[in-house]
Amino acid sequence: MSTLSHLDAEGAAHMVNVGDKKSTLRTAIASGRITMSANALTAIKNGDAPKGDVLGTARIAAIMAAKKTSDLIPLCHPLGLDAVDVSFGYEDNAISVTATASLTAKTGVEMEAMAAVSIGLLTIYDMGKALDKGMVIEFIRLIAKTGGKSGDWHAPE
Amino acid sequence: MSTLSHLDAEGAAHMVNVGDKKSTLRTAIASGRITMSANALTAIKNGDAPKGDVLGTARIAAIMAAKKTSDLIPLCHPLGLDAVDVSFGYEDNAISVTATASLTAKTGVEMEAMAAVSIGLLTIYDMGKALDKGMVIEFIRLIAKTGGKSGDWHAPE
Amino acid sequence: MSTLSHLDAEGAAHMVNVGDKKSTLRTAIASGRITMSANALTAIKNGDAPKGDVLGTARIAAIMAAKKTSDLIPLCHPLGLDAVDVSFGYEDNAISVTATASLTAKTGVEMEAMAAVSIGLLTIYDMGKALDKGMVIEFIRLIAKTGGKSGDWHAPE
Amino acid sequence: MSTLSHLDAEGAAHMVNVGDKKSTLRTAIASGRITMSANALTAIKNGDAPKGDVLGTARIAAIMAAKKTSDLIPLCHPLGLDAVDVSFGYEDNAISVTATASLTAKTGVEMEAMAAVSIGLLTIYDMGKALDKGMVIEFIRLIAKTGGKSGDWHAPE
Amino acid sequence: MSTLSHLDAEGAAHMVNVGDKKSTLRTAIASGRITMSANALTAIKNGDAPKGDVLGTARIAAIMAAKKTSDLIPLCHPLGLDAVDVSFGYEDNAISVTATASLTAKTGVEMEAMAAVSIGLLTIYDMGKALDKGMVIEFIRLIAKTGGKSGDWHAPE
Amino acid sequence: MSTLSHLDAEGAAHMVNVGDKKSTLRTAIASGRITMSANALTAIKNGDAPKGDVLGTARIAAIMAAKKTSDLIPLCHPLGLDAVDVSFGYEDNAISVTATASLTAKTGVEMEAMAAVSIGLLTIYDMGKALDKGMVIEFIRLIAKTGGKSGDWHAPE
Repeated sequence: MSTLSHLDAEGAAHMVNVGDKKSTLRTAIASGRITMSANALTAIKNGDAPKGDVLGTARIAAIMAAKKTSDLIPLCHPLGLDAVDVSFGYEDNAISVTATASLTAKTGVEMEAMAAVSIGLLTIYDMGKALDKGMVIEFIRLIAKTGGKSGDWHAPE
Repeated sequence: MSTLSHLDAEGAAHMVNVGDKKSTLRTAIASGRITMSANALTAIKNGDAPKGDVLGTARIAAIMAAKKTSDLIPLCHPLGLDAVDVSFGYEDNAISVTATASLTAKTGVEMEAMAAVSIGLLTIYDMGKALDKGMVIEFIRLIAKTGGKSGDWHAPE
Repeated sequence: MSTLSHLDAEGAAHMVNVGDKKSTLRTAIASGRITMSANALTAIKNGDAPKGDVLGTARIAAIMAAKKTSDLIPLCHPLGLDAVDVSFGYEDNAISVTATASLTAKTGVEMEAMAAVSIGLLTIYDMGKALDKGMVIEFIRLIAKTGGKSGDWHAPE
Repeated sequence: MSTLSHLDAEGAAHMVNVGDKKSTLRTAIASGRITMSANALTAIKNGDAPKGDVLGTARIAAIMAAKKTSDLIPLCHPLGLDAVDVSFGYEDNAISVTATASLTAKTGVEMEAMAAVSIGLLTIYDMGKALDKGMVIEFIRLIAKTGGKSGDWHAPE
Repeated sequence: MSTLSHLDAEGAAHMVNVGDKKSTLRTAIASGRITMSANALTAIKNGDAPKGDVLGTARIAAIMAAKKTSDLIPLCHPLGLDAVDVSFGYEDNAISVTATASLTAKTGVEMEAMAAVSIGLLTIYDMGKALDKGMVIEFIRLIAKTGGKSGDWHAPE
Repeated sequence: MSTLSHLDAEGAAHMVNVGDKKSTLRTAIASGRITMSANALTAIKNGDAPKGDVLGTARIAAIMAAKKTSDLIPLCHPLGLDAVDVSFGYEDNAISVTATASLTAKTGVEMEAMAAVSIGLLTIYDMGKALDKGMVIEFIRLIAKTGGKSGDWHAPE
């Protein structure tokens, strides 16, 4: 006879059951940035980074990561994305990454947007680390989401 | 006849050829943290987060991500890790993640440690976002590396 | 000219075409167990297994395996799970694993539940094998399914 | 402040947003072939190839590749296939592979059929290369597609 | 300041560090079986199962699963297998699967052999479940291992 | 009692056991091309293809595919690549792809180079198919290999 009780108490990890949720349009925007030395930033801007085209590679890595999200984050549901868009911006001592994901589904795409940003930033680190090992990834956060029962949400200014 | 020249200029993305490098012991330590509301932090500490055991799940996600690094970061070499270790710390308004990776190989394990930290933090975000969508991932960086031609490196204080 | 006939006789492996099936709610429950020495069972119960938290790790492995099912079983359709739940029970000389999977789709989730149980049990083996290499995985079977054209089914007592 | 403009010009790689497309029945057929020496072809026909059953293995590889398409081709959408069918034909100095894929979705399954053919042919190469390293894969193309806004299409004779 | 102590107590899941182990030849043999109705067994033997060639498909699934082991079992090390061999046997009311794996590495291949057996059996279940949903997978166990610090081991009779 | 004999006859698919082979430097070069309309070729050259930067994306897809080879081709050994290099050439009515792979291992890297070429070409097809669905992938072949017991090999002119 099994005694399941104490092994499956409230605290056990589990996927949320989305079976009763409605399939609605959902979008999410996330962003983050990586700070770096002037030297590294200039090399990336000029296309002189040692492993080649940094932002083109980071963009593909970010898009592909969004599609792998449910394989990376244990309790995420597998989702069929309608779109993922990744863009970059140069700041004074940093490069920013913004990702937008959308689909019509029973659960949101926040994690897909967050994963795209994270892997995009890691790829920049990988391709620039020969120039500056001290680059720091920071400020990865959700900017906004729409759709679903919890409704729209925007990060505070 | 092909005219390869301008398509494969210096700037094209490419894996670094590590064929001539020596196989040596290499280690890397990376860390990062995720800031959150007192409410979310307390729930995680108390095991009351809505998807269950946050740090246990994040630890497994981080370890598995380290093993997937070359599938996530386009120009990383596939590596056979000897060890990955992931630990967490509670801060005042944040949880920190530290990952240590090691192996004997021709190239370093910085990206494996960085990937473990990043996916560990994303998993915490995923499991806590019903409590606080405004959590922010920050300060992901390499703490130290040892081994290889470029030698030891420590992040500045 | 191709002569396809004998190469594609009835016996060739193929995915069943589910294009004409209706999308309905489907659930599946599977279970199995792993027998082990009293020594190994006590260590796992007490949290003293050499690789750490056995059931927490096995649970995550089981959930992630359910999501990978169509990548593991050649003729399974890729499915977007609504939920997967994994629970454990202590028996006299064994640990049992039960997995429940559900979704609304054109085909059933039996294999997702069976895969979750199998990988959960393999993970327990991996984490306990330093204590007892003679552990045996047994009695992996479908307990029940609901939905779909073939209707409900329950394993005989 | 970010200056996103020149980094995200028209030319940046991106997934097409299929959010506004209708979910309709879509099918695609692709084919290709691999030419080889009479010696290699005879061995494969007779089941004497050094790694064993060539076409049975290539068929499974092709089916599994169709399911991995969105993980292989960076800008493909993840799709839940209804069916994939793979068949082979013997030609005078070649083996041909044909794959048919179908589903009801917002975007087409051309790439799934093309990927199945390509990986099926690569698997034949792998299993026959000890007999003939000079085998050549050729004429991989879309034969026909149906469904979607762009309608039906057939390859010219 | 982090207070890592109680979060990383002895019980936390972790990969064993194999950095100090010697790279030696290691082999493992595992087996298991799936019991089924006479009807299902006859159909499989005769090549009449509804999804086609059962054992050919299960063999490929088993081999591919061995290569995915470190992606399935959270604390397994990624290993570069030298060989995997999978064989089947017909019993009175069952089909048995045996897998042998080998490599020269710092850690053993027991889990690769166990994973091959498990996924091979699940594939048989998948391909036969339209004939008999009550099939039961049982007796998955390690038969023998050689090599490594813990030396040779054989399952008791 | 099992009767393994007829199920595991010579013809069964199996990985070649490379345990007794020497680890030596091995390289492989493969190439292929995709023919297309003048319209499509011009759009790709000018950076006007509808999904964005075609060759940059195809290059990353090709490199990542090389790393996934053992997950795509059932009987390939998992290998730790030292380098993969992918280049493109414009022909009159086609784009050619060449991939070079190398490592020090017990078995060759031909399939890694062939897989890189195949997935690179499929990616070009995917990104150009809105311009020309009739593009044809052809002439994928091994150009040369070095190392290993079978020695050097070059494709006949």
